[in-house]
Amino acid sequence: MADVGTAPDLAARAREADTPRDCLVARFGSDRPLRLDAGVELSPFQIAYKTYGTLNAERSNAVLICHALTGDQHVANVHPVTGKPGWWETMVGPGRPIDTERYFVVCPNVVGACMGSTGPASTDPATGEPWGLDFPVITIRDMVRAQAMLLDELKIDTLFAVAGGSMGGMQVLQWAASFPERVFAALPIACATRHSAQNIAFHEVGRQAVMADPEWRKGRYLVEGANPRKGLAVARMGAHITYLSDAALHRKFGRKFQDRDNPTFTFDADFQVESYLRHQGISFVERFDANSYLYLTRAMDYFDLAADHNGVVANAFAGAQTRFCVVSFTSDWLFPTSESRAIVHALNASGARVSFAEIVTDKGHDAFLLDEPELFAIVRGFLDGAAKARGLKNGR
Amino acid sequence: MADVGTAPDLAARAREADTPRDCLVARFGSDRPLRLDAGVELSPFQIAYKTYGTLNAERSNAVLICHALTGDQHVANVHPVTGKPGWWETMVGPGRPIDTERYFVVCPNVVGACMGSTGPASTDPATGEPWGLDFPVITIRDMVRAQAMLLDELKIDTLFAVAGGSMGGMQVLQWAASFPERVFAALPIACATRHSAQNIAFHEVGRQAVMADPEWRKGRYLVEGANPRKGLAVARMGAHITYLSDAALHRKFGRKFQDRDNPTFTFDADFQVESYLRHQGISFVERFDANSYLYLTRAMDYFDLAADHNGVVANAFAGAQTRFCVVSFTSDWLFPTSESRAIVHALNASGARVSFAEIVTDKGHDAFLLDEPELFAIVRGFLDGAAKARGLKNGR
Repeated sequence: MADVGTAPDLAARAREADTPRDCLVARFGSDRPLRLDAGVELSPFQIAYKTYGTLNAERSNAVLICHALTGDQHVANVHPVTGKPGWWETMVGPGRPIDTERYFVVCPNVVGACMGSTGPASTDPATGEPWGLDFPVITIRDMVRAQAMLLDELKIDTLFAVAGGSMGGMQVLQWAASFPERVFAALPIACATRHSAQNIAFHEVGRQAVMADPEWRKGRYLVEGANPRKGLAVARMGAHITYLSDAALHRKFGRKFQDRDNPTFTFDADFQVESYLRHQGISFVERFDANSYLYLTRAMDYFDLAADHNGVVANAFAGAQTRFCVVSFTSDWLFPTSESRAIVHALNASGARVSFAEIVTDKGHDAFLLDEPELFAIVRGFLDGAAKARGLKNGR
Repeated sequence: MADVGTAPDLAARAREADTPRDCLVARFGSDRPLRLDAGVELSPFQIAYKTYGTLNAERSNAVLICHALTGDQHVANVHPVTGKPGWWETMVGPGRPIDTERYFVVCPNVVGACMGSTGPASTDPATGEPWGLDFPVITIRDMVRAQAMLLDELKIDTLFAVAGGSMGGMQVLQWAASFPERVFAALPIACATRHSAQNIAFHEVGRQAVMADPEWRKGRYLVEGANPRKGLAVARMGAHITYLSDAALHRKFGRKFQDRDNPTFTFDADFQVESYLRHQGISFVERFDANSYLYLTRAMDYFDLAADHNGVVANAFAGAQTRFCVVSFTSDWLFPTSESRAIVHALNASGARVSFAEIVTDKGHDAFLLDEPELFAIVRGFLDGAAKARGLKNGR
């Protein structure tokens, strides 16, 4: 990719990883290590997070938002790196379905990411250099464990709700499994109890694209002043196709040529869809760390609730008092409805209270991030009902 | 990709492109140029091809096989580069559905490929160096035009049948559109009348993966002694996922670990599906030219029968006497059944004789290359009927 744009300012990225802007940071010293599934401890570490709204006196109106693979804590504010709106402003804010006038919203950057929570781009205190591949491989359960420590820090005993889509939905399920007594209501959207072989395959292609870039330098690019931006852009382009649907691509681009009527008979971006994908790749590398991409895709690949519970997903939710609302989208082929039905069946088998909605849309997996009125109505309705059951006054 | 294998012998590849082994070569001198859709002429050029069986006295029992993107002329014999069986030995051979005891089978390597027909790895006679990106961008129609010239050379006026899957199926449709009077029966399998936006998108990711590799050297790797094998391997890995189905990947690999019971918490190929994909990538670069991959994917992207016929596919087949058998596979999401139905509707609209079969299988797009008894039965039955109508004695 010859035209992948200017090199991001790597020093700025490293700064963002250690001292992120426009957010809060909870620091956990050597007395409070994060125990990881890999069998090691991460210590010290930090969690960058955003909050919106006000915690009520009973500390009972907190909603935890879990972000997806390439998301971050900037749910409902201008992003400090890209200058773009928050990734879920349609869902979270005053008067929105997750109403910040009623609920206290907390969104942490996950461990392993690159926007201020400890990850491979953060400085390893033992060396004074970025962790790179010396950072331990983390899991969805590790992310949730760290989030629980953040809630301890915030003195929030029980979450009114936890919500998220895609990798965020995996965290929601893991929350319900790991800390059932701390979750009153759970909203896993467009996710699954385990990553499928096809999804692992797509992730592996993305990782190989990054690692094939000689600028990746075996993960030491930050130290060596290199930047695997071409490899990361290719990874993003491939992944982006899986976030959309065939129908949506057809509706948006079809076979339309870019700025012309006829083919050029070259390898330029002749078709609009090529141009669009190249833009997705280029803009992604300006805000995301290549090693974080490796770690977070790996965490998703490892996610398998059944494997963690003697092969039976229902065991993960045994005796759960949490009320669930599971949502899928008809055109999502990355996390198809069948995966959400499997969640529902497991919840039914464990006797949990669960509602389920499959939303008809051609927007594919990304529908959870887009303007989907039916999704908004479902989330609002579910939270209203849960707030009543929880005895929240005006939701507070 | 650190372990992409040893570098293929580039000198051997260049030799294979100019003087291919184990096949015939038709050479077209400056008096017989190939007119290309790009508006230029390719001259001189050559077509490498294989034949199986015997042409009858009436020269009426010829079956043209059109190969797919990464296929070649070695349909039913040991491949001279890989040492593996031919790619369609289950379909073509003595007693097989395309029975070489009845039919004279011809399979040319397409123009733009790298197994002996003129393509970007061939020597440009004007410079004495490999064409590289100076090779003109070609189309499916160009491939078919070159094949027609080969048939002229072989003095075969009318094909008894033309058959192929995927890009091969596109050529079959183009044959029926460009030379209806030369095609008695046509078997387009797992294909479409135009490449979809999603398919263009996947191809573009593959091209970008190749071009992102610094070893690609703007296409001059053969001249400069470089080899973009990492980029090409990534492209192949991504494409390979689209040839299979989610269900097939789940059945074959699921979430099984490679040679162990538990995750390693590293970026090694932990899952069997990762290991399998890496193998696909590595073995592909040993037999395929990276620039050819760019050219052939581009040709597929440009394919759009409707655009060539005033926006109406049916116009492409107006007055066709050819009898068609269209085949799709239920789990093929690259060329889904809806695309084959569109072919059938266009053929119906143009009054052509057409039968259609959708075969139930979980094997995805690759089903056309695999052991699919129903496919074999359909092809055999269709050809038997056509042979009777054609008046072939014992098929000869």
